[in-house]
Amino acid sequence: MPSPSAPLPQLDEEQVEVLRRVGREWGRAAGPSEAWRRALPVAPDLGGFPAPGEIRPAALGRHVRISSLGGESPAIELTEGDGPERGRRARAAHLLRRTVLGMPLRSSAIARERLRKRVALPVLSADALSSVAYGPEALLAVLVLGGAAGLAYATPLAAVIVVLMVSVALSYRQTIRAYPHGGGSYLVASANLGRTPGLLAAAGLMTDYVLTVSVSIAAGVAAIAPVLPALARSPVPLGVAVILVLLAGNLRGVRQAGRLFAVPTYAFVLAMVVLVVAGLHQAAGRGFTPATPPHPNATEAVTLLLVLRALASGSTAMTGIEAISNAVPVFRPKEWRNARTTLTWMICLLVVLFTGMMTLVHLTGVVPNHQETLLSQLAHEVLGSGALYVFVQLATAGVLLLAANTAYNDFPRVLFLLARDWHAPRVFLRLGDRLAFSHGIILLSAAATLIFVAFGGRTAALIPLYAVGVFLAFTLSQAGMVVHWHQTRDPHRLRSLLLNAVGCTLSGIVFLAAVVTKFLTGAWVAVLTIGGFVLLTKRIRAHYDRVGEALRLHPHALELPTSGCRVPAPDPAAPPEPDAPAGQGSKASPAVVPEDASEAEAEAETEEAPEQIHHLSIVPVAVLDLAGMRALAYAAALRQPVLALHISPSDAEAERFRDNWREWGDHLPLEVVVTPYRAIVAPMIDYIEVLHRQRPDLTVTVILPEIVPRQRRYRLLHSRIAGRLRRSLRTLPKIVVTTVPFHV
Amino acid sequence: MPSPSAPLPQLDEEQVEVLRRVGREWGRAAGPSEAWRRALPVAPDLGGFPAPGEIRPAALGRHVRISSLGGESPAIELTEGDGPERGRRARAAHLLRRTVLGMPLRSSAIARERLRKRVALPVLSADALSSVAYGPEALLAVLVLGGAAGLAYATPLAAVIVVLMVSVALSYRQTIRAYPHGGGSYLVASANLGRTPGLLAAAGLMTDYVLTVSVSIAAGVAAIAPVLPALARSPVPLGVAVILVLLAGNLRGVRQAGRLFAVPTYAFVLAMVVLVVAGLHQAAGRGFTPATPPHPNATEAVTLLLVLRALASGSTAMTGIEAISNAVPVFRPKEWRNARTTLTWMICLLVVLFTGMMTLVHLTGVVPNHQETLLSQLAHEVLGSGALYVFVQLATAGVLLLAANTAYNDFPRVLFLLARDWHAPRVFLRLGDRLAFSHGIILLSAAATLIFVAFGGRTAALIPLYAVGVFLAFTLSQAGMVVHWHQTRDPHRLRSLLLNAVGCTLSGIVFLAAVVTKFLTGAWVAVLTIGGFVLLTKRIRAHYDRVGEALRLHPHALELPTSGCRVPAPDPAAPPEPDAPAGQGSKASPAVVPEDASEAEAEAETEEAPEQIHHLSIVPVAVLDLAGMRALAYAAALRQPVLALHISPSDAEAERFRDNWREWGDHLPLEVVVTPYRAIVAPMIDYIEVLHRQRPDLTVTVILPEIVPRQRRYRLLHSRIAGRLRRSLRTLPKIVVTTVPFHV
Repeated sequence: MPSPSAPLPQLDEEQVEVLRRVGREWGRAAGPSEAWRRALPVAPDLGGFPAPGEIRPAALGRHVRISSLGGESPAIELTEGDGPERGRRARAAHLLRRTVLGMPLRSSAIARERLRKRVALPVLSADALSSVAYGPEALLAVLVLGGAAGLAYATPLAAVIVVLMVSVALSYRQTIRAYPHGGGSYLVASANLGRTPGLLAAAGLMTDYVLTVSVSIAAGVAAIAPVLPALARSPVPLGVAVILVLLAGNLRGVRQAGRLFAVPTYAFVLAMVVLVVAGLHQAAGRGFTPATPPHPNATEAVTLLLVLRALASGSTAMTGIEAISNAVPVFRPKEWRNARTTLTWMICLLVVLFTGMMTLVHLTGVVPNHQETLLSQLAHEVLGSGALYVFVQLATAGVLLLAANTAYNDFPRVLFLLARDWHAPRVFLRLGDRLAFSHGIILLSAAATLIFVAFGGRTAALIPLYAVGVFLAFTLSQAGMVVHWHQTRDPHRLRSLLLNAVGCTLSGIVFLAAVVTKFLTGAWVAVLTIGGFVLLTKRIRAHYDRVGEALRLHPHALELPTSGCRVPAPDPAAPPEPDAPAGQGSKASPAVVPEDASEAEAEAETEEAPEQIHHLSIVPVAVLDLAGMRALAYAAALRQPVLALHISPSDAEAERFRDNWREWGDHLPLEVVVTPYRAIVAPMIDYIEVLHRQRPDLTVTVILPEIVPRQRRYRLLHSRIAGRLRRSLRTLPKIVVTTVPFHV
Repeated sequence: MPSPSAPLPQLDEEQVEVLRRVGREWGRAAGPSEAWRRALPVAPDLGGFPAPGEIRPAALGRHVRISSLGGESPAIELTEGDGPERGRRARAAHLLRRTVLGMPLRSSAIARERLRKRVALPVLSADALSSVAYGPEALLAVLVLGGAAGLAYATPLAAVIVVLMVSVALSYRQTIRAYPHGGGSYLVASANLGRTPGLLAAAGLMTDYVLTVSVSIAAGVAAIAPVLPALARSPVPLGVAVILVLLAGNLRGVRQAGRLFAVPTYAFVLAMVVLVVAGLHQAAGRGFTPATPPHPNATEAVTLLLVLRALASGSTAMTGIEAISNAVPVFRPKEWRNARTTLTWMICLLVVLFTGMMTLVHLTGVVPNHQETLLSQLAHEVLGSGALYVFVQLATAGVLLLAANTAYNDFPRVLFLLARDWHAPRVFLRLGDRLAFSHGIILLSAAATLIFVAFGGRTAALIPLYAVGVFLAFTLSQAGMVVHWHQTRDPHRLRSLLLNAVGCTLSGIVFLAAVVTKFLTGAWVAVLTIGGFVLLTKRIRAHYDRVGEALRLHPHALELPTSGCRVPAPDPAAPPEPDAPAGQGSKASPAVVPEDASEAEAEAETEEAPEQIHHLSIVPVAVLDLAGMRALAYAAALRQPVLALHISPSDAEAERFRDNWREWGDHLPLEVVVTPYRAIVAPMIDYIEVLHRQRPDLTVTVILPEIVPRQRRYRLLHSRIAGRLRRSLRTLPKIVVTTVPFHV
């Protein structure tokens, strides 16, 4: 379980040992800490921070996120925060932000909420149940290509899918028992199969979540189309708008209390039940003789490929089935038992709704068309166009919106887990002001919008991509479970193992079916995405590993010479002691590096104690104006060796500057570089580099005067040389850049 | 005349005096310069720079820019320069840049080239003469709206325009005599009428130049359309391409030798003469009876407004007439006399071509239509579609291209003059690597492209904007001349004054006509632009004035207390002397500010001598890793008071960090701030601000460890806190930010 300190890695024993030795070293060189403490001109303790007045109240009070609790409660990480607002624009932005997002929340505002089963059910099954709104349609949309012959496969395929649902559900029941703290596919796969499968599962999940948003919203828009044609006339803008609302809502960290979720889900279930019952009643009137379906003319031969494709499409009806196993801890004790029961309920509902709907389709003989969703057709057939019809459509839209929203909980959580394992940038560890994983939420919205717009908000087009990710995740987590059971000594392990094995095999088959049959019609996008994702995350991890290694305090640092290389501040009273390399600095033997300072040491940035650092300040001055003088004074006051540097476009100009310098009194060493070109940054950098080569053991501090206008809009009017120089120098070793701002 | 040192303003006497006093001050405090020189650990003189090997040859050898010599030879200014290229992308970019632009040129590569009249003529009159290609068409395009009745005004209006040409030419002859060093409208207007008129003239000129590019290219494309239909099918992309070519060429600093220019201009003149003569010859066959014009049905009544509008449009035939008076110094001695002669020649040519063309129009009775340019129609009428026709069209295109190119010399020069007078950002003073005013050139291209694309590359649409700027500049410079003559004691002053007065009045009338008659049809854009431009330039000047004031070394600096506020570096041997405020730093009386340090002094950034600066270094440490240790060592090695600062998300975490700190030996004062929010930047800034309030006289240096990945693509993976902190802190007074890079 990540703790608040997760982002700040612990030092291991070796580290601490090194720390001690470095410390002793330091003590010898830097003198007693007392002296430093006494020398401090301020009292650091500002008496508690932030000052009582400054504590900002949490607007929404107690703040609950269901699924950031599912399995993993987030590390309390460092958030953006918004520095002191200066300037009108900044303040306006801040105000806007606060109005949209509300005041920041204290970390302590995170609280756990335990859900009773009947609340957890709607909360966690919205995603799964809502799939019924597009699953069957996706199934038939493929079969209808085969004409009547194709449609004949509807019922058998439906049966297959039901079997699939049940078996997957059964194997997730096993997962729940094995991972009472929540077993997301990523966790299970990486724990039992290793890193790569884990990352594959994560990739699958994340594409899944992105598509959940896109597909659900597309379907939702389609659902309200007949009810509110005005709205639905432009689906793409509408869909984008919805995504923006979800974005804002989730950034704000909407309080996702169960009740809020319960309504639409139950409404949808109710609507579907009404629909099915009414439908059956009508059919009963006809003695259940199926209305002869309109014979659509086949555009494709009914091949195994077609059937498999239909299966792959139809099985999107079971997406979101994994939700419960991710969120076991939100149940009341005994968590895993309650979770399992809820899962059973959910799967029953799912099966009922799905079969019910397929039956109706069979009886009414409607087939998908481009004008109207299948569900809406059924509703029209059975319920006419009255209030009931509207109810069905709105309930559908509602539950779909909810489903989209659940992705907003799960996607950032996966990212969080990846970041915690150093597979994603650290920012995804951060909880925003509002205790939401802002960065993940924004990323999800961006991705979903992109896909939604790219595919013109048409559900059908998105389905192929969908199945791939979902079933990849399913397969891998089941496979992980198989391994898990194989290793444990659990009494029922054999039974569980078998169930998971079956689940794994079946979802595996669907996964392959999806990839193969739809590769050209879009699945390749998903495959590429997933592949790229895995590579990327692995490289990120590799990089972080390298950095971690480089940052370790290494013992060898202490083998470094600590002999008198120290450059003492020149003291007007006493001239610097001759033995110091200060002497070597004289024109006599400029480039002499202390024998004991090896090249390696010189280049490596491994100083851990003050006396390993030998300072040289370089102050580039363009004009001897106030800004320039301040920079010089600043440098001199550090009482370390200082060299003033002036880049001059012409000899005349150089002479003029030297005159001013003499007028001033020539108190510091000055070097004037005349460059025949009009460049200033390039020569300065070259000069500093060459100079640094003379004594690679020196730490060169470049002290830049920088004019900072108070209003940002004036920035353009001043040379951004300081910034350019900083950017160019930051890649050089042992060169430190200091900007002395001068405000106008 | 600006000198190389123009950008680096001279110190006036008072300044130098202050400098001396500050210097004496410094001497007392910082000790003898000898000590500093001896303490220098390196030999600053790197023996000439750039090292002989590094001198880059000038690719094009002697490099001549005509009109950057016109009146003003440019200050040799600091150019962008391209720092050491690190990383593949940077190097690629550098290579590309060098291939397109060529190697940088030494400032000394600037040379003057004196032109003999017969070379200067084509060089400087391309712009003016090319106007004949669209002027007459613009005139008739308006008249034709009035049907036959309207066209009847063609000849009289043509006569008016000729009068206009002559009088304007005459008054520019005066300008030339009065400003032998070149009298651009901006110079004349600001010299004689004051700042605002000067800026108005500059605004007029600059819109003029932008539109010269757009209009000329549009017309050029139209000209080649019938010859190379394939090319001209997509005028907008073609035009943009041409602009890009001009951009590259001018950035490269094309050697604009006269010969290169002479060809197309003379070719165009020849073509026009041929056309006119042939036309007249044909007409002679018909006894000069005008072919009855096709009676176009009038769409507007022939009102005074219509006629004025026609006049305003037609007078675009005289744009570019001012070129010669800008560039007097490029003539051989006696410059002004030669320039006048050349101007006379030019105006004669212009009048001849213009009248000739109008006569042809009258005789052949062609009227503008949307398929074909007027010129092309005439050529077809007179020369058929053979080689001669093609010659006419190509020559036209050529001279128009040239005209566009001249704008690339004049626009940046005006910007240069504005920048020199602090009315435009300093960057426009810079000569690029290739001794071209890169920034101005880029700006021009951007503006021209924008307009060209916005108006779909249709000349007609651009004309209304055109006249406004041109005639505003004309009017103001003539007015300026009137004042000038009024003040001088020149023998011929009265004559000159009258001529200028006439020129001024006439152009004034045309200007008003343009504004009034075309305000709604586009002139408002020009008016708004000009107005906005003047406001902007004035605000820029105001800002620079403020800054200059703020940057002056002010004597009062020395009235500041210089008593023992100095914070000595803590010396393990001897404890800091009690009288130093170091003592005050102890918890006993933390917030005591030295009595003699007034609030004003404390906040103002006016330190000019070392002992006015009291250092305190704050080192924010997140983890005690190598980067953190280095930052601490760096700070300690400066031997100034140091305070380590740790921002902690929770008390537990804080405790853990303190433990590590103790393990290390607790060598430096440490302050841990626990923030209930997850922000790190905000609390840090707040803390530093509050701390700074304790002792506003302190200069606080924030020393940030920053992890710098060698490859840029990894930057995203590391917190950019250092950057954010720098941005937030740079607005605070007396707070200096130092980043200690750690490369991985």
